[in-house]
This record gives sequence, C-alpha cells and structure tokens, in this order.
Amino acid sequence: MKTDTLPTRDRLIRAAADLFRRRGYHGVGMAELLEAAQAPKGSLYHHFPNGKSDLALAAASWASDGMTAVIDASFAEATDFPDGVRTLCHKVAKFFDLSGQAEGCPITATLLDGPENAEFRQHAAGLMANWVDTTTAHGVRLGLSEAEARSASEHMLLLLQGGWTVARSQANSDVLRSLPDRLTLPH
Amino acid sequence: MKTDTLPTRDRLIRAAADLFRRRGYHGVGMAELLEAAQAPKGSLYHHFPNGKSDLALAAASWASDGMTAVIDASFAEATDFPDGVRTLCHKVAKFFDLSGQAEGCPITATLLDGPENAEFRQHAAGLMANWVDTTTAHGVRLGLSEAEARSASEHMLLLLQGGWTVARSQANSDVLRSLPDRLTLPH
Repeated sequence: MKTDTLPTRDRLIRAAADLFRRRGYHGVGMAELLEAAQAPKGSLYHHFPNGKSDLALAAASWASDGMTAVIDASFAEATDFPDGVRTLCHKVAKFFDLSGQAEGCPITATLLDGPENAEFRQHAAGLMANWVDTTTAHGVRLGLSEAEARSASEHMLLLLQGGWTVARSQANSDVLRSLPDRLTLPH
Repeated sequence: MKTDTLPTRDRLIRAAADLFRRRGYHGVGMAELLEAAQAPKGSLYHHFPNGKSDLALAAASWASDGMTAVIDASFAEATDFPDGVRTLCHKVAKFFDLSGQAEGCPITATLLDGPENAEFRQHAAGLMANWVDTTTAHGVRLGLSEAEARSASEHMLLLLQGGWTVARSQANSDVLRSLPDRLTLPH
C-alpha cells in the first residue's frame, strides 16, 4: 500500500501495525518504527504522548478495524452463517499467505506480547469482543437466534486464534482453511 | 519450586521457560535471565553456545514436556475421551489461575514471538505435533478410531491455543473451562 502521502500519524499507525504483527511489541524498536513510517524523530511523542505504548493501542485498534471490515465483507454476500464463516476463513488464509505466512492475529501480537498491563489486556479483550459482536449480528441477520449466533461466534474466535497460532508454527495456511469444518454450526 | 540445588543448565532452562512464557522471547533480557537463574555470566554460552536462541529452544522443549505430562495425567484415569478432555481443560485453567492469569502457551510465547526463523517455527510445530500425538494415543486407548482420535486432538489443540489467547486478554480462565463444550467429541 502506498502510504507516503498519508499524514504522519497514520503512517506511524500503519507501520506499527505491520511490524508489531510480524514480530510482537517487544520485537520492534523505536528507530525501526520511525524509519518504516518515514516519520521525523519528534513526531512519535507529538502524536502519541506515551510513545510506543500509545502507538501500540492505536495500531491494534486500526488493525482490528481492518479485520472487522473483512468479517463484514465475508458475510455481506453470504447465503447463510456457515457460508459466511467459510468465506471468512478463506480470506484469513489468503491474507496469511500474502504476508509470507508470518502474520497472525493483529491484536495478540501487539497487545499480549507487550508489557503485562491491564490497559493492553482490556483493550485486546474489547477489540476481540467487537469481532464477536460483529459476527453475532451477521448470524442474527442470517436467521440464527441471538444465543446461537453468539455461541457460534465465540467458537469462531477461539478457532481463529488457535488457527493463527498453529498456522504460524507450521508456516502453512491449510489449518485456517479447515476451521469451518471444526465449528459446530447451527443449521 | 525450589530450584537452587539444580545444576546451572537446568536453572537456566527453568528460568527461561518461566520468563519467556510470561513476556515473550523479546520481552526478556539476558541479565534478567541470568539473575532469575542465579547463574554466573559465563554460564549461558558455556551451556548454550548460541546463547538466548539455544536456550529458548531448550526451554520450550522442557515446558512442552511438562504439558505432555499434564495431558498424560488428565487421561490416565479418564473413563472415556471426553472425560480426559474435561480434566485437561480444568487443569490448564487451574495452572492459568495459579500463574496470575499470565501464562499462555509455553511454546508460542517462547518460539513464535522470537526471531522469525525457520528453526523456531519448526521446533514449535514439532512440539505441538507431539501434544496431538499424545492425545491421539489416549483417544485410541479409550476406544476411538485413529482418525476420530486425531481429528478430535487437532481440534483440541486449536481450542487450547485460542483459549489461552482469549483467556490472557480477559485475564479470566472461564473460557478455558468452557472448551470441552466446544469440541465435537466422538461418542
């Protein structure tokens, strides 16, 4: 993606989301972040007063919004809930392959491998809850009861998180494509 | 656990397994590792010629063996495969609580948040495959076909990995206790 015409703040967020997702919060240094974002040295603390940790929260939110858009796109044309789940898992597998089998969950890599603090964890939990809410709403629109849709969406989140982890260890996206078969789907 | 009477190599492995599991490979510095292990400065490279990365591989193997022992203990007295799965998930939830809701998968935190290299990934994939093999063998012993047992064990690994991730974000072990209900178990 061509990002050099974006404002500095956006360039910082996108560079951080990309680098944290590949190597984790602790695996990325400030100099590297600034260089990837083509951002001047003073700009980080100008836009993010608490520096790297503020940037991580913003980067996780941005990356999570991207995932929400993928969920919406997957279910937009779906004929039923299982159809949407299949499309979602195939899209996730494709993104994983495009990233060189390197990119797992954008929330986890950024927020759960960072400092053990409550703010990071709560932010991660809130973003994951958004995914579940989004998927649940699609399930209800496609005819499931609220309880069925929520249970299936929670199961989906667990499988997706597990699938990202196992796919990264295997450097292979097959496990992500197999997730729909694991999900106990309402008929 | 009292470790100060163990040989230096074992103290290094245990300290590394504990620290990496909590904060990831990149989140732990060498000085901190040596101090936690009460190990003299020269001892790391004496026992692990490639330093931190060799130690991470050994620590992940050691922690993975501990998990295999938990799997074996969970299935030892099980009346059937679902019973073993329930015991396993409750034990994992209990360990998670005892660690202050901080410790997820010992393999993932050590090897997938470290350098993006093939050796770390292959080692992680091999250790996870061992867990699946161990669980599959218990399933077969308890009357499942090889294919049923393997499929259920692979699903179990995905749920466990997803469960650790979600539990860490929520700082709550409930999701780990709910995993058996998610698993499509052979009857």
